[in-house]
Amino acid sequence: MRSVYLDYAAATPLDARVQKVMNPFLAKEFGNPSSIHSYGVRAKKALEHARNSIATQLCVSPKEIVFTSGGTESNNMAILGIAHAYRVYGRDIIVSSTEHPSIIESCKYLEKQGFHVTYLSVNRSGAIDLDELKKALTPHTILISIVYAQNETGVIHPLRDISKILQRTKQQSSHHFPFFHTDASQAPGYCDLSIVRLGVDLMTLHAGKMYGPRGVGLLSVRSGIHIQPLLYGGGQQGALRAGTENVAGAVGFAKALEYAERMSVKETKRLTRLRDMMVARLQKSIPGIIINSIPEGLPTIIHVSLPTIDGEACVMYLDARGIAVSTGSACSSVARKQSHILEAMGLFPHEIKGSLRFSLGRATTHQDIDYTIETLKKVLTRLQP
Amino acid sequence: MRSVYLDYAAATPLDARVQKVMNPFLAKEFGNPSSIHSYGVRAKKALEHARNSIATQLCVSPKEIVFTSGGTESNNMAILGIAHAYRVYGRDIIVSSTEHPSIIESCKYLEKQGFHVTYLSVNRSGAIDLDELKKALTPHTILISIVYAQNETGVIHPLRDISKILQRTKQQSSHHFPFFHTDASQAPGYCDLSIVRLGVDLMTLHAGKMYGPRGVGLLSVRSGIHIQPLLYGGGQQGALRAGTENVAGAVGFAKALEYAERMSVKETKRLTRLRDMMVARLQKSIPGIIINSIPEGLPTIIHVSLPTIDGEACVMYLDARGIAVSTGSACSSVARKQSHILEAMGLFPHEIKGSLRFSLGRATTHQDIDYTIETLKKVLTRLQP
Repeated sequence: MRSVYLDYAAATPLDARVQKVMNPFLAKEFGNPSSIHSYGVRAKKALEHARNSIATQLCVSPKEIVFTSGGTESNNMAILGIAHAYRVYGRDIIVSSTEHPSIIESCKYLEKQGFHVTYLSVNRSGAIDLDELKKALTPHTILISIVYAQNETGVIHPLRDISKILQRTKQQSSHHFPFFHTDASQAPGYCDLSIVRLGVDLMTLHAGKMYGPRGVGLLSVRSGIHIQPLLYGGGQQGALRAGTENVAGAVGFAKALEYAERMSVKETKRLTRLRDMMVARLQKSIPGIIINSIPEGLPTIIHVSLPTIDGEACVMYLDARGIAVSTGSACSSVARKQSHILEAMGLFPHEIKGSLRFSLGRATTHQDIDYTIETLKKVLTRLQP
Repeated sequence: MRSVYLDYAAATPLDARVQKVMNPFLAKEFGNPSSIHSYGVRAKKALEHARNSIATQLCVSPKEIVFTSGGTESNNMAILGIAHAYRVYGRDIIVSSTEHPSIIESCKYLEKQGFHVTYLSVNRSGAIDLDELKKALTPHTILISIVYAQNETGVIHPLRDISKILQRTKQQSSHHFPFFHTDASQAPGYCDLSIVRLGVDLMTLHAGKMYGPRGVGLLSVRSGIHIQPLLYGGGQQGALRAGTENVAGAVGFAKALEYAERMSVKETKRLTRLRDMMVARLQKSIPGIIINSIPEGLPTIIHVSLPTIDGEACVMYLDARGIAVSTGSACSSVARKQSHILEAMGLFPHEIKGSLRFSLGRATTHQDIDYTIETLKKVLTRLQP
């Protein structure tokens, strides 16, 4: 049986070339970067080389990069770290209602601590309305967090435009707030990652979503911004994130980002063509299908609703035929609740129930799409009431 | 030139056998354990198999194991998590003054939040006094954290005796406090890890200190104890620790622990013999040397003071000759401050300045010790004033 993985937004495999550069730092060059002997010095050098490489790719200073254990930690660190450090200046926070659970749940925690969080509504394709954002701003807004490329629908938010709105607000009020954070976990390889050009203050990245190692992420923090650490300890990484640094992980992260950027133009073109072809064929061969994702979104994501069927059953039937797709975000599957993102997009309950996300990746071929469409058609005949 | 690594307490290499079991979960079986398709199910199965294996080795239920990003996160999670969850019941915390920076700095943070922390004094070999512990207990003590095997001096604390004292206190006061946490990062392979036998409520372990992968740790939390999470998000691991689980890391962790336990008797015997031989030769060949570590401590650690020399210079001279040793904990080297642990042990400033830690490991041979002793003698002739 053919095996087709179309859930790259949930997890990517580790690129063999990335693993190759990591290997020496697992068994041979395993020194603790805080050690002062040559094992430590070499480990430190590799760690800082990785940090420099990533900083160059993001157009920031290496000092602005803090390695973490992944996207969830980076998001928590941004939201809780800013909130706790700047609470005396204001307690208003604005996020979109389609943020990752690690942003939403951090906000819910802060609401219990007396913060006021505005969850911006989104349209049918998952995009926020910039006018609503403008209206939500108050003199007490200390932080705005808007996802760069949304993991369920693939919608890409105009970070530069948002940044310009915030710059204008800052000029008018002549203070430093609000800070602007973005969760860019799904963006590498498909979106501009220049932090300077985007005008964001804090950015989350996750190596495990870009064919890099699991358990490694980063938060980029513009210099001059203080965040309260989540973890206390040995003073590593400018005391912003304690804990012995995962050198092999950082080295792999840098290489994974390098490949994502290097393959970007070609892969974006290839995947856009595959995605558009798949969308056209879905529309042609499955009557009643609703395409929720938009052409301007990530070239990797197709999000659909099949109003008369049960999405979860469909995932199972496809899985039995070797095809891995998702009903939505794996990050919220564990809670087995209806996606807050699809609700926010205004989908009707039966559209949410019948939702499917196909996410394409580096190994996806034309034949994979053919097989998926043919199999989906057969599965739907069984599932159709 | 011979290369001799004697800093295993700072970092261990990844065991090739451990890497081998991890590899399939990096590139092929890379599913997100929260996904409901078979990639996800297989990832989840591997994750839970690792959790079960570790739970069996620690004599706890799998539900009591929370995977983290390492020792620092586990220690922060224990200290801050208990403090924040139980603050209404009391704000007194007791720790030894020789805890890892991730414990000490978490406590310093809590002191600013109105908690009262008692730092127990230690004797010359780094051990706490149980009578002092008894006296420090108050009706408001909610948490005690005592390191199992100390990373600088190798002293092993009698956790069972401490647990008995706490049990008696609880019986007398008929309430559930204090909870007992131990940082056991240096213990695997050399100390009994049965949580039931030890009578601890929470235990920290770090795969990166036991020839397992870096960036993976755990906190064992006795069922019935609630801790406030450090990270919010997708509800993974019973909502105690959000974030996509590092499956390969967990699989490697379980295998590393298995090997540490399996090799325990033989390695403890072999390293004890090597260590005792080295201590005897140091005493014989280096006049004025003070041995701070004790025979009952970890078989891997020899901590000495060379009162007339500069320890850091000595590390450099040895390093130039291929020998990696440490002046103390790498976890605090980054801060370049005098070890709080050696201060707490009552060492004089010149004894601290002249301190060296040799930590032995799986690859250490008789020849390594010979070479180290001979080289140290030569180096000291150069350094001696």
